[in-house]
Amino acid sequence: MLPALNTPDYLGYAKAAVEEGIKIIETAGNPEPILKYLKSNGVTVIHKCVSLGHALKAQAKGVDCISIDGIEWGICSAGHGGEYDTTSMILLGRCAQELKIPFLASGGFADGKGLAMALILGAQGINMGTRWMCTVEAPIHQNVKEAIVKMDENGTILVLRKFRNTTRLAKNEVTLEVHKIENSKLEPQFQEVAHLMSGARGKGVYETGDINAGVWSVGLAAGLIKSIPTCEELARTIEREAAEALSKANSLYTNRASL
Amino acid sequence: MLPALNTPDYLGYAKAAVEEGIKIIETAGNPEPILKYLKSNGVTVIHKCVSLGHALKAQAKGVDCISIDGIEWGICSAGHGGEYDTTSMILLGRCAQELKIPFLASGGFADGKGLAMALILGAQGINMGTRWMCTVEAPIHQNVKEAIVKMDENGTILVLRKFRNTTRLAKNEVTLEVHKIENSKLEPQFQEVAHLMSGARGKGVYETGDINAGVWSVGLAAGLIKSIPTCEELARTIEREAAEALSKANSLYTNRASL
Repeated sequence: MLPALNTPDYLGYAKAAVEEGIKIIETAGNPEPILKYLKSNGVTVIHKCVSLGHALKAQAKGVDCISIDGIEWGICSAGHGGEYDTTSMILLGRCAQELKIPFLASGGFADGKGLAMALILGAQGINMGTRWMCTVEAPIHQNVKEAIVKMDENGTILVLRKFRNTTRLAKNEVTLEVHKIENSKLEPQFQEVAHLMSGARGKGVYETGDINAGVWSVGLAAGLIKSIPTCEELARTIEREAAEALSKANSLYTNRASL
Repeated sequence: MLPALNTPDYLGYAKAAVEEGIKIIETAGNPEPILKYLKSNGVTVIHKCVSLGHALKAQAKGVDCISIDGIEWGICSAGHGGEYDTTSMILLGRCAQELKIPFLASGGFADGKGLAMALILGAQGINMGTRWMCTVEAPIHQNVKEAIVKMDENGTILVLRKFRNTTRLAKNEVTLEVHKIENSKLEPQFQEVAHLMSGARGKGVYETGDINAGVWSVGLAAGLIKSIPTCEELARTIEREAAEALSKANSLYTNRASL
């Protein structure tokens, strides 16, 4: 449901998904064009938002669940999302205060402590993007996975802010150049960076493993990632870490002196 | 220990504090000029940092504890701090991975869920600034307290980024003007905004309650604050909320089916 030069056939996509028996669909942008159709076919609709205002609007329109994205995320902001600069911690706290429907935590989550934290703040669970890139099964070049493991908390960069399309990307030769061009003049034109931002160039990163071939998405969570497990190992580890972190903090807390 | 036009007599301050029996002191910037003196007089030194790199350096110098500040904070960045844009969630996760000494969570904390989250992520506790401003005892005008209660997650603004002195302030007539001037040219001079950023003007806000009189500090946590309790009520509420949040998440988690 995102603005596009050539609007895709969203309802056609929705019909194909329903016919294939898909029971949960995540929407973004304006869910209205397909929401009624999805709901009348028993599909659970999770709507992705980057601000509480958007989440409240989506709730009013009738989606079942919100996926709320803090500024930690690594996915293209698809519009004005990334302009809010609100962190996951604050957004989740606000969602717990204002939303009546369930919500998932997205942006910055990579381990069991993160899952435990999301549950503490009232989310029903976490969404992970970058973390799944660093798994054995992820269909991207091993160099990219290893580059993420090597990153620290300063491995990403926000670009395209001047075009109100803020995007968090891996800090590399190409994104540093985009950042430089964008900030070298008051009113840069997108044409000046379009050749650097090309999706085709970015795709080459994942295929060839040349991490400087183009732009590629990665979240702040990259700084926390130190291994490349299988998906099953990752899920089990996160579950175990979350249980341990909750249990440890709970026992620490209840055993101490009270005010 | 922060750069200043006229360097204060830091060692003199430290001596006065020790003579008065102060047992815990928070430093910022470079703690070296007074660290040896403080340690040899039995003072516990908490060092305030905005990046893991600074925290590791302070640890090597011998401080006892780190107070780590995410981008959610509302205090002047005092140098290059605010340029990192790293959120509390990621910074705390990284501190848990790298630091050998204890650390406190600062920036974005205002309630018991935040305390619980900080404990989950490995911190020993939280630091709060903005939250204490909204207490009965805080020596600032009631209008300011009520303005914070009315704020949502978008009530703050980052200014002075172009001067590498990024500061989070309340979004008001003055800070919007600073933001506009700063972004209206490629290389603005600080003189162009100095009259707006004046501390004397800002001080007037707290005294007169005119929230547009000047610039004033407030963290992203403002969006979470909905009451003006006494300090004792606040501390008790946070303690109770944290225990409840930990206990609830812990029981939720351990009762569910396992992978």
